[in-house]
Amino acid sequence: MPTTTSLPPVGYIGLGIMGRPMAGHLLRAGYPLTVYNRTRAKAEPLVAEGAKLADSPKAVAEASEFIFTNVTDSPDLESVILGEPAAAAAHCSHKSAVIDGVRPGSIVIDNSTVAPATAKKIADALAKKDVFFLDAPVTGGEKGAIEATLAIMVGGDENAFQRALPLLQKMGKTILHMGPSGNGQMTKAINQILGALHLVAMAEAFALAQAAGLDLEKTRQIVASGAAGSWMLSNLAPRAFAGDFRPGFKAGLQNKDLRIALEAAAELGLDLPATRLARADFQRLVDMGCADEGTQAIVKTRWKR
Amino acid sequence: MPTTTSLPPVGYIGLGIMGRPMAGHLLRAGYPLTVYNRTRAKAEPLVAEGAKLADSPKAVAEASEFIFTNVTDSPDLESVILGEPAAAAAHCSHKSAVIDGVRPGSIVIDNSTVAPATAKKIADALAKKDVFFLDAPVTGGEKGAIEATLAIMVGGDENAFQRALPLLQKMGKTILHMGPSGNGQMTKAINQILGALHLVAMAEAFALAQAAGLDLEKTRQIVASGAAGSWMLSNLAPRAFAGDFRPGFKAGLQNKDLRIALEAAAELGLDLPATRLARADFQRLVDMGCADEGTQAIVKTRWKR
Repeated sequence: MPTTTSLPPVGYIGLGIMGRPMAGHLLRAGYPLTVYNRTRAKAEPLVAEGAKLADSPKAVAEASEFIFTNVTDSPDLESVILGEPAAAAAHCSHKSAVIDGVRPGSIVIDNSTVAPATAKKIADALAKKDVFFLDAPVTGGEKGAIEATLAIMVGGDENAFQRALPLLQKMGKTILHMGPSGNGQMTKAINQILGALHLVAMAEAFALAQAAGLDLEKTRQIVASGAAGSWMLSNLAPRAFAGDFRPGFKAGLQNKDLRIALEAAAELGLDLPATRLARADFQRLVDMGCADEGTQAIVKTRWKR
Repeated sequence: MPTTTSLPPVGYIGLGIMGRPMAGHLLRAGYPLTVYNRTRAKAEPLVAEGAKLADSPKAVAEASEFIFTNVTDSPDLESVILGEPAAAAAHCSHKSAVIDGVRPGSIVIDNSTVAPATAKKIADALAKKDVFFLDAPVTGGEKGAIEATLAIMVGGDENAFQRALPLLQKMGKTILHMGPSGNGQMTKAINQILGALHLVAMAEAFALAQAAGLDLEKTRQIVASGAAGSWMLSNLAPRAFAGDFRPGFKAGLQNKDLRIALEAAAELGLDLPATRLARADFQRLVDMGCADEGTQAIVKTRWKR
């Protein structure tokens, strides 16, 4: 009677910078793991560690009680979980999405950052098959994913959350149930608004420091220690000063997340002028060709070269 | 040969919320202290502790080797140190400003937050009398003033800074020389830009949380722990949630400081669009009659009642 067989089978779809280490924690905790990634090579390190490789999201769903997803944007997620709209409309015989293979009582847990409205739509569609859906976006970056110190903000059914919690605890440190479906994504949108505006604040304040000829690092030290302090100022400003624009979190993704936040606000009849300004700045940064640089590259919208 | 007589005589002009505790630290450290305040009653607690009361800024300057000032805005400071322009123009016989009494070799140290250009103008005027001027604005609020944990950012002559340092160390914890005259105020402007934008970020992000029906405090906890964290989010957001708008730092003063920052930027040919937006928000808050509330009242420009 080996104890490991008591752990339920788990699937993970989307093995990017975040997904791969997160899936790895489940595997190393003893969960039988089936994985799928569009680019197959990204799955191989996990397969080498003992994960099974599936040939579709559907196959992952068929093999798993808990199915995790981690993709880039709302349309990708809909396609992975609900299938291609075109294929569905044509009653295409080759159905390969999660919804085509998932069993009643299973839980689909999405770690992507997508629109709250998308999370609600997917939750509704899966509920018709007696499948639970949790929107569970994360913060903490690649480092947090590798070290299992992520913050995970979860929307969806409370009982499903409790069932998923032991698995989420393998990936993150702070895990909170934020309410019904969509509330995890809404919390993430709030997180992204704050982060983006703190980055714009950093860019603008140090544009003035630069123009005035101040020692940037000395200025940062004295202001970061008090009421003007932020995580961005402590962690990303020194990289920007050093001209290090390698990505912790990519500017293009920050731009996408701000679009999601503004759309979610608009659906609630809310105008967010400062967020609109930050979004325009990140869009400009993307238009400058810097989508794959880290968010600290926002200083390029304000600083002289 | 009592050792206390070796401490030079010190003056403090402007005994408001910040100035009174700062002057008190000098007095308790054994410096012979002469004080002046327009509203005389505010000087009495220090007089009761042993400070001498002077009847003008000039009289403070005559009695002191180090003369501190702490007033609200640039015109107040010019009037206290250089005198009323009208009186000067008329060669008014009753000259009562610091410059009318100060002795060569003395150091005037301003703890106010004023325009960098005002600091430079005053430094130039005093230099003609062989008097040094240090612009030495502070951050850390009333609590920092009382506990002597302020950060003090200093512009002006390096040797004058070294002479003043033992006195500044009685009032603050982090004390940095930022370069020539005006650089202390410029550093403070940068500090105020960051703080204001972090407050606007808080107001806007939690307007979305409120509209979405999220638990505000739970949302704050999960986002404050990561890359979206800021001093404002940790310290002022809980007060705003509780409807506590008592001032740590007054909205009207934040508005004034943003005006100073934008003017300083404009003089350097720099446009700061996010700071302009924050300034418009604080102006609106002042127009709503909230100048004497704490800066966390900025949420009133975004939140539903």
